[in-house]
This record gives sequence, C-alpha cells and structure tokens, in this order.
Amino acid sequence: MDIHDLTRELHIRNETKIVMLVADGLGGLPLEPGGLTELETASTPNLDQLARRGILGGSIPVAPGITPGSGPGHLGLFGYDPVKYQIGRGALEATGIGFELEHGDVAARGNFCTLDGDGNIVDRRAGRIPTEESAPLARALRDAKVEGVEVFVEPVREHRFVVVFRGKGLGDQVDDTDPQATGVPPLLPTAREPASEKAAQVAKQFIEEAQQILKGQKKANGITLRGFAARPHLPTYKEVYGLRAAAIAVYPMYKGLARLVGMEIVGKAATLDEQIKVLEASWPKYDFFFLHYKYTDSTGEDGNFAAKVNKIEELDAAVPRITALGPDVLIVTGDHSTPSLLKSHSWHPVPTLLVSHCCRTDGSTAFGESHCQRGGLGQFESRYLMTLALANAGRLGKYGA
Amino acid sequence: MDIHDLTRELHIRNETKIVMLVADGLGGLPLEPGGLTELETASTPNLDQLARRGILGGSIPVAPGITPGSGPGHLGLFGYDPVKYQIGRGALEATGIGFELEHGDVAARGNFCTLDGDGNIVDRRAGRIPTEESAPLARALRDAKVEGVEVFVEPVREHRFVVVFRGKGLGDQVDDTDPQATGVPPLLPTAREPASEKAAQVAKQFIEEAQQILKGQKKANGITLRGFAARPHLPTYKEVYGLRAAAIAVYPMYKGLARLVGMEIVGKAATLDEQIKVLEASWPKYDFFFLHYKYTDSTGEDGNFAAKVNKIEELDAAVPRITALGPDVLIVTGDHSTPSLLKSHSWHPVPTLLVSHCCRTDGSTAFGESHCQRGGLGQFESRYLMTLALANAGRLGKYGA
Repeated sequence: MDIHDLTRELHIRNETKIVMLVADGLGGLPLEPGGLTELETASTPNLDQLARRGILGGSIPVAPGITPGSGPGHLGLFGYDPVKYQIGRGALEATGIGFELEHGDVAARGNFCTLDGDGNIVDRRAGRIPTEESAPLARALRDAKVEGVEVFVEPVREHRFVVVFRGKGLGDQVDDTDPQATGVPPLLPTAREPASEKAAQVAKQFIEEAQQILKGQKKANGITLRGFAARPHLPTYKEVYGLRAAAIAVYPMYKGLARLVGMEIVGKAATLDEQIKVLEASWPKYDFFFLHYKYTDSTGEDGNFAAKVNKIEELDAAVPRITALGPDVLIVTGDHSTPSLLKSHSWHPVPTLLVSHCCRTDGSTAFGESHCQRGGLGQFESRYLMTLALANAGRLGKYGA
Repeated sequence: MDIHDLTRELHIRNETKIVMLVADGLGGLPLEPGGLTELETASTPNLDQLARRGILGGSIPVAPGITPGSGPGHLGLFGYDPVKYQIGRGALEATGIGFELEHGDVAARGNFCTLDGDGNIVDRRAGRIPTEESAPLARALRDAKVEGVEVFVEPVREHRFVVVFRGKGLGDQVDDTDPQATGVPPLLPTAREPASEKAAQVAKQFIEEAQQILKGQKKANGITLRGFAARPHLPTYKEVYGLRAAAIAVYPMYKGLARLVGMEIVGKAATLDEQIKVLEASWPKYDFFFLHYKYTDSTGEDGNFAAKVNKIEELDAAVPRITALGPDVLIVTGDHSTPSLLKSHSWHPVPTLLVSHCCRTDGSTAFGESHCQRGGLGQFESRYLMTLALANAGRLGKYGA
C-alpha cells in the first residue's frame, strides 16, 4: 500500500503547526555491550521532558537490517516509501551540491581520470587530484558545448564533479562509462532504451568536448560519467498532505531533498541558533517545519563518541526555543543511526519521539534507545511518521464510514 | 501480501471454538497526559484475569495514523485488508440499516432536498426534515417504478434514505447527483464507464418518478443520490478460513458487515445479556463467534469518559459467562479506538488480548492500553488477528515443507 493513496484523500487543513526536528544519524550504540549510547550518555533534560509528555518508538528507515543513505533516510521520514521512490545517483549528487534540478534534466556524476597515450585508463580517480586543482578544471568543462542542450558542470570534491544536461527528450537510462577497470578505455555512453538515445548521444558529445579541453592535463586528462538520473517524480507535500512545508537546513543536500518533495527552503542559516531564528520568523507562514541538524551524523561518522554526545547536548539546549513556539505536534527523530562505534550509517531503529495533546504517553522518562525500544509507538517504518504527525494534528479525516 | 492466499490453502478443520469479542471503539486516552484511559480506569477483574492468562498487543486497523470507520475497522478484524477491500458508501449505508444486498445490486444514499420553482436546489437537506416526516415520504418513493429493475427504498434518518436497484447488468460507476451547492439543479446521474450506463439510466428514471411523487411537498420536493456502490466481492469465512461463523450483534451495521464476509446472523438480541444467551444456544453449531458490543464506542463518541468506563465494566461482568463455555481461543479487541477525549474514532492502536492454551503469556497483569503497548503481540495490523486466532486454535497447517 502507498500511504499517500489514503492521505491524498483524507487530509484536512487546519491551523495546527507540526515541527519535525531531524538530528541526522541520531541513533547510536554503546561502546561496550550493555553500556549507554551517545544519546543516553548525553545530558538532555529538555528532550527527557518531552519524552515524559510524549510517545516514543524506534523508526525503521527502510526495512529491518537495511542501512539507508541520506536520500532514502529522509524520503522515509517525509512519508515516501524509499523503495518505491528512488533518487538516482546523479540526481542525488546534484541535489547534494545545491543544484536545482528541473523535471526533464539528466544529471550524472563525473570522475576525472588519467588516460595513457592509447586512451586506456591508468588511474580511475586521476590520482585523487586535490579539490584546488580539480575545481578549476570542472569549471573549464563548462566550455564543452552540445548543440540543442544546456550543459551545467559543477565541481564536487577531489576527482568528482556533476554534469547536468537540460533539453527536450532526454531519458536517463544510460549506462555508466566507467569500465571499473584500468588498462582499458572508458566505455561509450549507451542507452538502455530508445527514449534515452538522445541523452546518450549528448553525453558522448560532451565527453569528446571535455577530452579536448583536458588534453594538456597530466593527471586529469579524461573523464568518466556514472549514475545518469533524472529528477525523480515525487508528489509534493501540498498534494499528499495539504501542508505548506518549510525546510530549515544548513547543508545543500537536505535543502535539496526537501525541495524534491515540494518544501520551501526558508532563510539562510549556518548554525542551529540561526536555524531557530528562521523557524521563529517563518512560524506564521507554514504548517510544517523540517529542521535539519547535521552534527550528530558527522561526529558519528568520525567515530567520535564524546563529540557526538556534545552535539546532542547542544541540540537539547535549543529545544526550549522550539517548544516555546507551541507546536501542536513535535517530532524528534533522525534519518538513520550513525553509531560512533561503527563510524558509519547503520540499520538500527532510530530513536523517535512524538508529542501532542493526544499522543497517548507511554511512561517513558528519558529520550534514548532503551526507552524507544519499549516505547508506545513500537518499532515502525519511518514512512508512517507523517501519517502519525497529521493524525495527532487533527489533519486526517476518517477512512471509510 | 494477501494473507488469504495462505489461509485458503493452509486451514484445517477441527472441533475448536473461537470467540472474537469486539468492544466497538474500545481504545481510549487519559483525560490528562500520564493518566489512566477509560479501560484502565474501569474495574475489570475478569478481563484482567484473561490478560494474565493471555497475550496482549495493540492492533492497528489500517496503518499507523489512519482512523478507520466501522467498515474498514471490522474488515481488518475479520482478516480482510481494508485498503484492498473497500465497501462503497451506498453499500455500507444499505448494510447499516439491515438491507440484505445481493451481488449485482447497486445501492445509493439518497437525500431529500428542497427545489425552487426553476428546479434549483434551495436546501440540500430539505431543512433537515425530521424522521417522522421523511420516513413516510421515503416509503412513498417505493411507488417509483423503473422497467426491468426492482427498486427498494428504505428510510434512514432525517433527510436521508437508501435506494437499491436490483436487475441485470447494473454497474456502480455512477457519479453523484448532489452538486454540493445551492442555486443550481441536481446533476444527472452519469456513468463513468460503459458498463454502468444502464444503472445511470435507471437512476435517472427513478429520480424523475420520485420528483413526480414528491411534487406537492413543501420541504422535501426533490432528491439527490450519492455514493452508488455494488455489494463488494469479499471471499467468505468458509472459503478463506474453513469456519462456520456466527455473528451476534444488536445493531444492523455490524450484522451487515458480518453478512458481507459470509457469517450467519444468529438470534435476536437487544442487550448483551441476550447476546450471550444466543451465544450459549448456538455454541454447538458454529466454529467462530463474532460478538459485537456497541456501547464502548457510543459513549466515547459522546465524550463521556465515566459512561464509557461503566460500559466497559458491564462488558467485564459478562466475561465469565463466555469463558464458562470453554472457548479454545478467546479474543477481546475493538475495531478502532474512540477516546472520550476526542469524541470521535481515532488512529490509536486498539487494546487486544488473545487467550489460548498455547498463546505464550507475556507477564501482563491487567487489560489496558499500557500493558497492550508492551504486550507480547506487539503492535500489529489487525488483519493478522484471524491468522493468530486460527493458529492458536490449531486450525492452520504448516506453510511449505
């Protein structure tokens, strides 16, 4: 079942406000079995108070045991089945650097590579060329013109860049040109279906032009393209929930993901303090606020348990400014777990709390993995969090008579 | 997955008896966060004893956050995916007043309305004409004849009635004639597909005849028809579970819903006491008993916490007479929650208990929302309750070797 088949029909508009505070990679693990996780170690008096007033659970981003990237992690939180809706690599990469993809665009990830005199690949990553050297080269590729199509090239980091083709009739079913091997030449971009022939042709011309531009380079004298992908067709928050939604994020990736589901990106904020100022300022104008906090993930990825604890405490300190606004429904969760122990995203259910006047409290006394494991929301797929949010806000009518 | 694909093949017949006691709208909320719900406030020594012998859980009627009406709520309990199987408005209304729909019938909800001299609607509900006035008018509409089709008209309440067309080749894809506005005439019934052209034509003739019959009326001089719907095709309890099933309900709606899945409506009962007498009398003849108790819902809808507590206590007092019959599996649950706090159906998981000799007790000491939240059945979709019932009754064989 696609839950949007129900919410599309059942949603009601009213004056309530919903806040979804996403602490990226929030879930953790103890360093020793039986110990406390980062969230449990942190002193979080404000979140603990919310836990006493709310209902807790563990949200499963995709399915038990499946570790999501940021794309599926957020799509789940936004209520979109992350298996049904997939964001192709190229589209996610473009989104991640703040490129505003339009419907019909085809994006691909590019790698600089090193070719020998015969055109065979010697190094698939051009010696991991530093960003200072690669970024000007990526910008130089903007001179590669393809007739009838607009071409955008944006540097990423080291050997990576993004290319976006904009024009009529471009399909994204084009194979990678990276042969995943050295000693052989890059592959030609090949369409997997007739509707993508034009895009393959466009990519081929772009690669030829790029090769000319890079001819004099020592390291980065060739390119490969991977993950051709169009902007995914996601119904908007307005269509499926009837919500005017605002996204308040610092990093381009999360702004981009929110934009894909039709949220408005509001304000400019570089810190949590600034994000909350934006929240306060935009409070009257929207029904739903997605507030993204990055540092719980980055410290987890670094394997820095203590730093993650600190970042959670910083977040906790900001909570009273959010509750002071009087949201009707407040959700605190993450898009996935990032235990410092594993230094990576993980599959563990994500600590989640929901507070409303009718949430049915569950006797939890603190916000942490153990309470969430036993919480009243149980362990649930994160794609149901939005229906729970709408229900608690009185924004969903009855299904059937 | 449709669970019936499995039960259809795997079910076994034996001598066991299963009782499903449905307290309508059973789930509740505390009046103050952290307080006790209606079920937790009620003194329920008999249900608490069952809780100690049984296993508890929270059943989710449709999906997290989705509030069901009685139709989807009961279909879920009966093991039918309430999103796959939908009962159209007209069919549910006919069912609700005890009209025995046959396959091929098309039912619609009718409204009396007031038309001006030009045939435009002045009042879409005919001034909410009282039932004493509208019921005779509805019965008068039985004189509206349409060639080749049987027409049934049944009064409902105030401005509402039900009309059922019975004949060959009637489809139900016909648009409402209520324009949802005043100052304009009713719409003509229009088919959305060729297979429903005949039904649209029949409805048109019926409306014309009805208009003639109502011509002299001041308030109710016109009608509109809405929610055209055929009897849904639901496989029967016998087909999918191999059960001879009996329904013991006071209100027509619940008898009707049970009839749609092939249960037999046994006995006539106006009180719980009489329902249990029917249960006792019909005990040898059936394998499965659906016992419906209405008052937990109606008191919840009234927002009367204390009355709901009373009604739960009355139900509890009847439990020993049920257990005295020695059911092999006894389930106590509801079709949805109806917290007095919200004065309406809600999405909250429904307290559910199951007792059998092999149910794996979970240490619960009382029947209530908190115990159910932490119970051994977890939070589960109600459509799996029937497979649990069959399994606990030894009525399901092994899937695969």
